Amino acid sequence: MTALPLSREAFEARLRQIGAERYHDRHPFHHRLHGGDCTPDEVRAWVVNRYYYQSRIPMKDAAFMSRVEDPALRRAWRSRIEDHDGADGREGGIARWLKLAEAVGLDPAYVASARGVMPATRFAVDAYVRFVREKTLLEAVASSLTELFAPRIHAERIEGLLRHYAFADDISMSYFRKRLDEAPKDVAFGLAWVLDHADTAEKQDAAAAALEFKTDVLWAQLDALWHGYVAPARIPPGAWRPGEGLRAQAA
Amino acid sequence: MTALPLSREAFEARLRQIGAERYHDRHPFHHRLHGGDCTPDEVRAWVVNRYYYQSRIPMKDAAFMSRVEDPALRRAWRSRIEDHDGADGREGGIARWLKLAEAVGLDPAYVASARGVMPATRFAVDAYVRFVREKTLLEAVASSLTELFAPRIHAERIEGLLRHYAFADDISMSYFRKRLDEAPKDVAFGLAWVLDHADTAEKQDAAAAALEFKTDVLWAQLDALWHGYVAPARIPPGAWRPGEGLRAQAA
Repeated sequence: MTALPLSREAFEARLRQIGAERYHDRHPFHHRLHGGDCTPDEVRAWVVNRYYYQSRIPMKDAAFMSRVEDPALRRAWRSRIEDHDGADGREGGIARWLKLAEAVGLDPAYVASARGVMPATRFAVDAYVRFVREKTLLEAVASSLTELFAPRIHAERIEGLLRHYAFADDISMSYFRKRLDEAPKDVAFGLAWVLDHADTAEKQDAAAAALEFKTDVLWAQLDALWHGYVAPARIPPGAWRPGEGLRAQAA
Repeated sequence: MTALPLSREAFEARLRQIGAERYHDRHPFHHRLHGGDCTPDEVRAWVVNRYYYQSRIPMKDAAFMSRVEDPALRRAWRSRIEDHDGADGREGGIARWLKLAEAVGLDPAYVASARGVMPATRFAVDAYVRFVREKTLLEAVASSLTELFAPRIHAERIEGLLRHYAFADDISMSYFRKRLDEAPKDVAFGLAWVLDHADTAEKQDAAAAALEFKTDVLWAQLDALWHGYVAPARIPPGAWRPGEGLRAQAA
């Protein structure tokens, strides 16, 4: 006997439950960051490593679009790349992330080189890009739905960083403020698309597993960061070390 | 001006230096394991996660062979798959690893299901399989050269585990004993192949980077293990938890 699919509402609730249980706002590193307990070097390590994730998002979206035959779906997706890379003189999310890098005392060119990124960060992020390149379109779109849970973390982050850290100001927080505008539009489209297309129990299971996979990608990045940089720091060979990659004024 | 390649001897020394600096025998988890300081659950977590690496090695070798046009090279490589998967009634390395799983109190079927593997382990190991599938043959062979450094760690492991842990006996240690015979043959071939084919400075750099990449793959697995299971254990969502997957007698 084949299982019946959940109703649209029940399936959306199932997806939201995955976020409630596994999204990285539950990770202790985020509590530490937002609560003002991170040292400057822990913040820098986060900025260096999270840059790698940001830098791969447009490549992930291009990999997705390279597999989409429907011009309307490609058109709806295209703004994600523009939001990260910039367009028509508007700066994108990657440039805004580099302003945060500068604000925390890092040389933006060093951060953009991705030289100090931990291997564990690369493995997790690259797994995400490849997932989107290789899995079904449904699984690829479903894996983007962690954006459902992002506005909460961005709002907490802006508030927490502004309250606790001298580097936080309108310029360095511009990445997060902008994502508060962009993410809801993207995720409303993605969620509707997944609810429309996951029309069997099997497809619903695959979409839910894809969203779980993506929560693993995010969680693993913070695990690596904690292990590498929170005392007793155990920085893996080749990764950024405190004192490296500082901008001239901060060195 | 193009850089001149190193001599064969100097290039081999460069590769060996990478092992001296970055091979995972330098990782604190190995000292803990070999020194008898791991709890039974830490040993189990290692067995559960390391199984995933073992299980992907023959897939990695098949991916390599799928890209090799030269029958002689495929023939030389094929024994690696047999060594892991078994042949003609001889059991392979994977079956021997599951004996170790049983000896430490785990249900071999649970371990073989790979259900409890940490996402970070999957990301690292899958990155290795994909590296071998996508990079040049030279880089693929070079990435296998961590075997140059394996006999030392296997010998230390047999001695350390036998001395410190009740589960260690001839049967449970058979994986490591057998690798002491197999690895030197494989790596002698691989090393000669790399030294023969890395005939420009650029290729030598690529081969050295491939070997560094592989040391990252191994190191990241132990970082994840330490973070997840050594106190204060921070087990990521979905990964094996103490008490799960035990064999009937041990439960």
